[in-house]
Amino acid sequence: MANCIVAQSGGPSSVINATLAGIIKANQLNPLYDHVYGGINGIEGVLQERFVDLTKMTEHENLILRQTPSSALGSCRYKLKRDNLEDFEKIMKIMEKYNVETLFYIGGNDSMDTVASLSEYAKRNGIKNRRFIGCPKTIDNDLEQIDHAPGFASAAKFIATTALQCWQDVNVYPASRKEVFILETMGRDAGWLAASACLSNIVDILIVPEKNFDKETVLEEIKACIEAKSKCFVVISEGAHYPDGTYVSAGEARNDLFGHAVLGGAGKALEEMILDSGVCARCKVMDLSSSQRCHATEQSRVDVTESFRLGLSAHMRSADPSFTGKMVSIRRRTDVDEYDVEFTAIDADKVANFVRNFPEKWLLPNFRGVTEEALDYMRPLIKGTPDIIMKDGLPEQTVPFYMRDCEIEKL
Amino acid sequence: MANCIVAQSGGPSSVINATLAGIIKANQLNPLYDHVYGGINGIEGVLQERFVDLTKMTEHENLILRQTPSSALGSCRYKLKRDNLEDFEKIMKIMEKYNVETLFYIGGNDSMDTVASLSEYAKRNGIKNRRFIGCPKTIDNDLEQIDHAPGFASAAKFIATTALQCWQDVNVYPASRKEVFILETMGRDAGWLAASACLSNIVDILIVPEKNFDKETVLEEIKACIEAKSKCFVVISEGAHYPDGTYVSAGEARNDLFGHAVLGGAGKALEEMILDSGVCARCKVMDLSSSQRCHATEQSRVDVTESFRLGLSAHMRSADPSFTGKMVSIRRRTDVDEYDVEFTAIDADKVANFVRNFPEKWLLPNFRGVTEEALDYMRPLIKGTPDIIMKDGLPEQTVPFYMRDCEIEKL
Repeated sequence: MANCIVAQSGGPSSVINATLAGIIKANQLNPLYDHVYGGINGIEGVLQERFVDLTKMTEHENLILRQTPSSALGSCRYKLKRDNLEDFEKIMKIMEKYNVETLFYIGGNDSMDTVASLSEYAKRNGIKNRRFIGCPKTIDNDLEQIDHAPGFASAAKFIATTALQCWQDVNVYPASRKEVFILETMGRDAGWLAASACLSNIVDILIVPEKNFDKETVLEEIKACIEAKSKCFVVISEGAHYPDGTYVSAGEARNDLFGHAVLGGAGKALEEMILDSGVCARCKVMDLSSSQRCHATEQSRVDVTESFRLGLSAHMRSADPSFTGKMVSIRRRTDVDEYDVEFTAIDADKVANFVRNFPEKWLLPNFRGVTEEALDYMRPLIKGTPDIIMKDGLPEQTVPFYMRDCEIEKL
Repeated sequence: MANCIVAQSGGPSSVINATLAGIIKANQLNPLYDHVYGGINGIEGVLQERFVDLTKMTEHENLILRQTPSSALGSCRYKLKRDNLEDFEKIMKIMEKYNVETLFYIGGNDSMDTVASLSEYAKRNGIKNRRFIGCPKTIDNDLEQIDHAPGFASAAKFIATTALQCWQDVNVYPASRKEVFILETMGRDAGWLAASACLSNIVDILIVPEKNFDKETVLEEIKACIEAKSKCFVVISEGAHYPDGTYVSAGEARNDLFGHAVLGGAGKALEEMILDSGVCARCKVMDLSSSQRCHATEQSRVDVTESFRLGLSAHMRSADPSFTGKMVSIRRRTDVDEYDVEFTAIDADKVANFVRNFPEKWLLPNFRGVTEEALDYMRPLIKGTPDIIMKDGLPEQTVPFYMRDCEIEKL
């Protein structure tokens, strides 16, 4: 018999480990593989032969893993380039050396590109019995070919919960104290996360990348809101930008390794505009920062369950030798009234390098939030809170595998 | 029979409404008062005769109130000044007009000063049957004469939970990516909140107001940490300051109405020092901002239970006509091994205008965190998570009373 490797890549989420837990559990239910190896730090660690053996994980460890945020195997930003054949050859050799038939890669659209290109390489070179399977995750919800990306719903639930509770906080002082509260969310190109704050039903102004920032209109709307009720609750995506593409946070933009701008500061930039314009003399900015992708104590139960099952599904489908270059996807059922999903498989290259935006038709005019249709799409996703296993008042957490000694002897 | 008023003041917390819920519930168990009136926006609203009638609140409403963060009655920053006799006279007249015997005031040390001064005024002027009773709250835990202030434990639990989960997030990339994560907490004069992050057991560097900021030592410690394990987790209080009292965040300090500096930005200032000094080229700052005082979905069960019972206790004690100018306090039992508390009463003027600092002897040298003794003090406080009542994936919340129509006809 053969083995499999699971690795994780890209920015972490609150439920990415649930998919890993699903793959491990599936192999205990049906041991298609002798060993489930965890690749440390994504494809980068695979290339360095850094593995842990996850095959015998106990049920308790599995439950703890599901509630542990971020990537327990570590992540990477390393991207396989199609013209760098050396990396491809090396991965094939390592898979042969460890007798690995299947590589499961949990990640966003860059990772789906890795899955597609490895699969192509193997096919092109007549390499048999090597399967590459993608498991989607991204809090940004900007993946194509899937109803919603695992990780989005938990981030959305945390954002909406935070918005609701901060709204209680910002309103406590008398009407004589006029105040704007600005909540900044992640979302470089897509406004899904910022839009999810509208689930709380308290957002006055929503600024997302899908709708060009219009300073004059935004300030007018804030002014009208302050005049009407003395407080204004604004939500802004980090990627909010002007018609010419300049980020609202432009002053602070730098570049990361992928050529994406590293953002942060759209909220602060808007605060300055508000103070400078005299629209309101008191403004507070809260940037949710890392919390929105790692506050797993408030996972959506729907999200963590689906992520776990996606791992099960990926493992089960890998029994088919021809199942490669695929991503396991989630489709919302339309044949029943209640919310339910089915798991499907699509070609990984149909996901790689595409971005799915928040639909413009779901945005209300003048930055006033989102339509009922948008809320109907998001509402079922955030339902339910899992029973988090606590210890001394804090959530139990998996000690990251990348911090443990390598448990597999190099062959 | 007579009535009572409850009002809330100062910065909100995750459990200040639980004390209000306790007072309302106690009056249903033993109707000492015909009506429990809620005063809107603290003493400011009392002076304006803005009341709601809370007497008949249902059990479900009471449960929802306990899990609703911030001050459901609204808050104020208005401070009674002892030489402003007009305000005192007016309050006594309003109490007479509404047949109010007891004013419960839930707040921090400024509010205890209000309780003490109103009580003194009534005594000095021979006004009978007017009682003023303080119920403590503050996330800062800087109140004297109490083992811990209601509100602190829930903030501490949220901070430690967030630290633990962000630590998982910051560590995922390979050791080649060196990174400092800075978590900024509230705490103007006292370091309790920042110190509570150490409950997560992952804090490398802790900077609190009780220990003068020493740039050289802090940067050296961060450097050593980065060299040892490539990541460094720093927690800093907003009120961190140099030996001469200058705030680390000095560039951004302004003044609020009470003459306290409005802070924010200690983390950003430290980030600049780290980047400028070359100690690390990658740094991320997360300011917990309002979340730490209003993220009630993760209340400590100990905290919310004690806050509720403190309200019960205050109401029950008010049956004694001589019980005035008092604050109901919490004392930790030393006669049993398990964690338990008893409720006591102390003079409100012993609390007013004092600040209790985090003990210096509980700080490890070189900003390396806190001692086991400090952890032993904090650990029992954050235990247990209440069963939050959810609706469509979000916590059910009380519609703030200050947003409702005034329910009491002016007499």
